[in-house]
Amino acid sequence: MNVIQNLKWRYATKAMNGQVVPQEKVDYILEAIQLTASSSGLQPYEVLVITDPEVKQKLRAVAWDQSQVTDASHVLVFAAWDQYTEERINKVFERSNKQRGLPNSATDAYRTRLIGMMGVKSAEENFHHAAKQAYIALGSALVAAAEQKVDSTPMEGFDNAAVDEILGLAEKGLKSVIVLPLGYRDETKDWLVNMKKVRTPKEELVTLV
Amino acid sequence: MNVIQNLKWRYATKAMNGQVVPQEKVDYILEAIQLTASSSGLQPYEVLVITDPEVKQKLRAVAWDQSQVTDASHVLVFAAWDQYTEERINKVFERSNKQRGLPNSATDAYRTRLIGMMGVKSAEENFHHAAKQAYIALGSALVAAAEQKVDSTPMEGFDNAAVDEILGLAEKGLKSVIVLPLGYRDETKDWLVNMKKVRTPKEELVTLV
Repeated sequence: MNVIQNLKWRYATKAMNGQVVPQEKVDYILEAIQLTASSSGLQPYEVLVITDPEVKQKLRAVAWDQSQVTDASHVLVFAAWDQYTEERINKVFERSNKQRGLPNSATDAYRTRLIGMMGVKSAEENFHHAAKQAYIALGSALVAAAEQKVDSTPMEGFDNAAVDEILGLAEKGLKSVIVLPLGYRDETKDWLVNMKKVRTPKEELVTLV
Repeated sequence: MNVIQNLKWRYATKAMNGQVVPQEKVDYILEAIQLTASSSGLQPYEVLVITDPEVKQKLRAVAWDQSQVTDASHVLVFAAWDQYTEERINKVFERSNKQRGLPNSATDAYRTRLIGMMGVKSAEENFHHAAKQAYIALGSALVAAAEQKVDSTPMEGFDNAAVDEILGLAEKGLKSVIVLPLGYRDETKDWLVNMKKVRTPKEELVTLV
């Protein structure tokens, strides 16, 4: 199946049946996330994969009681860096240069400019920037999950601070931005499964210049 | 090819050769954008497709003189809603209900809550939220382009206000967030084409809970 067919197949699953997603499919989706492009290659986020039933219960309680959080077998939590630091940025460039057999001086000009640009912005602006990068990865994850015929439900409807607390994200310098349950649709209980997929018409979405 | 293979094939192309991407491939990428998930299905952004050589020149001048902006045949500019308004939100729900054969009352509770939630946030916070949705679509676009063997270069390195001015975005209540040239790599001039793709190792990116 191609990307368009996969995107047509997927939908924000409203009820899941508890069936477990095989590990190789979860790994495939995580690899798609890992391979996703990001600004300057920083990948300024981490992904927590929740399978512990008690933790899923706690998350559901702070996510508007959405049933998918417990009826999914795996719940991905995308958590963005709370801010950019020189240490975090340097680490990315050092790893890249090492793997490419380049001296660190090869990227010094770019790296220094980047650190300067981030440094003049507030922590909040930097966090928004990092969060956006996680959303690119969400785009990859949704296509990859659909290709694997795994259902998913991207969620912003949760208490971010409470999720951060449950998962101990502040200590890691992270903040939750998206929750993505992975599982299988329960067609008998899902009000959305047979609804028409509605999108902005192309003539309103796209302008030729 | 599958999503993982496509993501491995793609890279942020640094030099393009001017070859024109066939219209059906551009349309395919635009359809992937159109089908992308977004928060409450709002799709709070538009996409401008720039082929006019003079406009591309102007954009290049405010995008750090990156050559891909003129050597790409099509330059996509993702422009997010500058803020959420009741009118914009209502329009989305009315279209959806109409196409699904539902009365508007079917979504009134959800829609009213959504408008309330957006209303208490600042225009800037709403813009950040809208921009993030465009980044999900960027994720789809990058996978779709790679599937079509079309090269692309996601860019944040441009003067947003200048791009808004060139494209008259303020009048449309939009702000530029990402520029995405589509074209074909020039292997003889691209310093990145043969470099190893480096990513955060899985053990640092992913935590199991």
